Amino acid sequence: MLKKVVLTACLAIALAVMPPAYAGLVEPLPALPPIPGDNSMTADKVELGKMLFFDPRLSGSNWISCATCHNPVMGFTDRLPRAFGHAMSQGPRNTPTILNAAYINVQFWDGRARTLEEQALGPIQAEVEMKQTLGGAVENIKKVPEYVAMFGRVFGGDDPVNPSNIAKAIAAYERTLITPNSPYDRYLAGDKSALTPAQQKGFDLFQSKGCIACHNGPALTDSGFHRIKVPGSVDLGRFNVTKDESDKYMFRTPTLRNVELTAPYFNNGSVNTLEEAVDVMGKEALNTKLGPEEVGALVVFLKGLTGEMPKIDYPQLPYTKY
Amino acid sequence: MLKKVVLTACLAIALAVMPPAYAGLVEPLPALPPIPGDNSMTADKVELGKMLFFDPRLSGSNWISCATCHNPVMGFTDRLPRAFGHAMSQGPRNTPTILNAAYINVQFWDGRARTLEEQALGPIQAEVEMKQTLGGAVENIKKVPEYVAMFGRVFGGDDPVNPSNIAKAIAAYERTLITPNSPYDRYLAGDKSALTPAQQKGFDLFQSKGCIACHNGPALTDSGFHRIKVPGSVDLGRFNVTKDESDKYMFRTPTLRNVELTAPYFNNGSVNTLEEAVDVMGKEALNTKLGPEEVGALVVFLKGLTGEMPKIDYPQLPYTKY
Repeated sequence: MLKKVVLTACLAIALAVMPPAYAGLVEPLPALPPIPGDNSMTADKVELGKMLFFDPRLSGSNWISCATCHNPVMGFTDRLPRAFGHAMSQGPRNTPTILNAAYINVQFWDGRARTLEEQALGPIQAEVEMKQTLGGAVENIKKVPEYVAMFGRVFGGDDPVNPSNIAKAIAAYERTLITPNSPYDRYLAGDKSALTPAQQKGFDLFQSKGCIACHNGPALTDSGFHRIKVPGSVDLGRFNVTKDESDKYMFRTPTLRNVELTAPYFNNGSVNTLEEAVDVMGKEALNTKLGPEEVGALVVFLKGLTGEMPKIDYPQLPYTKY
Repeated sequence: MLKKVVLTACLAIALAVMPPAYAGLVEPLPALPPIPGDNSMTADKVELGKMLFFDPRLSGSNWISCATCHNPVMGFTDRLPRAFGHAMSQGPRNTPTILNAAYINVQFWDGRARTLEEQALGPIQAEVEMKQTLGGAVENIKKVPEYVAMFGRVFGGDDPVNPSNIAKAIAAYERTLITPNSPYDRYLAGDKSALTPAQQKGFDLFQSKGCIACHNGPALTDSGFHRIKVPGSVDLGRFNVTKDESDKYMFRTPTLRNVELTAPYFNNGSVNTLEEAVDVMGKEALNTKLGPEEVGALVVFLKGLTGEMPKIDYPQLPYTKY
């Protein structure tokens, strides 16, 4: 809490010296993400969510967990162009990192969930991801006495092992997967040496060229949708959710935090390097051909968005009672 | 080192008061496993091995790592009857834990490798596991500048990224995956309250019934082969390696350390509970029908073999340079 107060105070000072046009768009990562009133975070709930996140018994095969694609050793993504899932079937889109997803107000590339709680049950049921029914996942968890006891302790009620509580526990854990204290955050907090001169030049360009129009706020995303056609893409994006013609090829703005860890890029993972990704965004989003020096400066700035990775005390999962 | 000296001194005292017939067969986990002269452990080598262990770029799909089946959250195994691998193809055998494998003198269920170094390259190439060629793995690693630099620092030489060095690094990391300080070890070190009276009774039975004839030494395995036909097994075991008729249905004695974490049991994972496993072993290995009280006592003793899990500071893998 003190840390948050200090950060807020530093931010106020920092914003006071910034160009006013962008002042409202720049924000360091708050110490805590927004926490919904009906899913408060407790240590027990976070621990339960962590266990479920790593537990392959949420999948139809008992082999794939959330952590399979949101792999902690690779920035909580899989570094594949498009995700592999059940039986190595390939999904249609690139796995987004879940680092700092708690600061984004809309989930999935096409925004078909608003909250982490709504999001959590999707991949469990997807044919090309974990391929499990919610009933099957509940049944698997109920065979594990330690889980039944934990759900009771955390949620209470007559039948605490249910899909809604599974989602709440996983979402509570995801709210701990945040990466504070990047060079960018330290810079905004007042340490003008935290970004190198080259990165500061990149940050200036990031604002003056207009990247910040969509990549703003604590997660450097507006949680909005934009029409970005990327190489090789045939994906209709948000249209698949809304069936609204005007949503064709619209995708949610991804966070830029830790972007150097989460190649390949875009909804179809068609681009391998940050240099190429910045070049594409210049053309597609800014209608500008960025020069090589501009691209270089923007890329070094983006590398200043890598924060401190969350430490994970790996759980030891309880075994199924037969 | 001091810890080792103290443990050794305590062991000498403990053995002095034990029945002499079994004295040579009982041994707490040494503080360090045997380390081969040509693969000394350095901090850099262990760190490199850890990164490779978690890196799916060793697989043909770029999706499966050693840690996929030897999963840290489940006692470094997968809790499946038989392993899933590439495209979810199912292998013929149960995934053995690699916890304390460093104390065993023969690797795989059929003993087709003697050392961890020999073992490490097997699953990378197996069709039903990681399905990669050694050349392909080397090529993937060479695309990662940080890996190339680390291999150079650790191994030196003109072309340090090669299969032999990959195996050495992974084996060095595996030698850190050990679980000291179980109740059994503390009991052998002189703390007579470390095993409960029920567990001590189980330990007595473990010796008097003869389990200890094969399950002995620091990892509670003789690193030998025995003819154990388990429910549903059609696997010829060691015969597949030697083509010697006398090796039919022979399998390596598995470690019993952390056995409560590594269900299901036996080479085909056909048995889900320790109670049933002990019952089967009574019939198959001891030619004895164990009574329910005997089975119960042996099972509580086996739970005293669970040690302290290794802490894993999970790596953040460098990305491939395109």
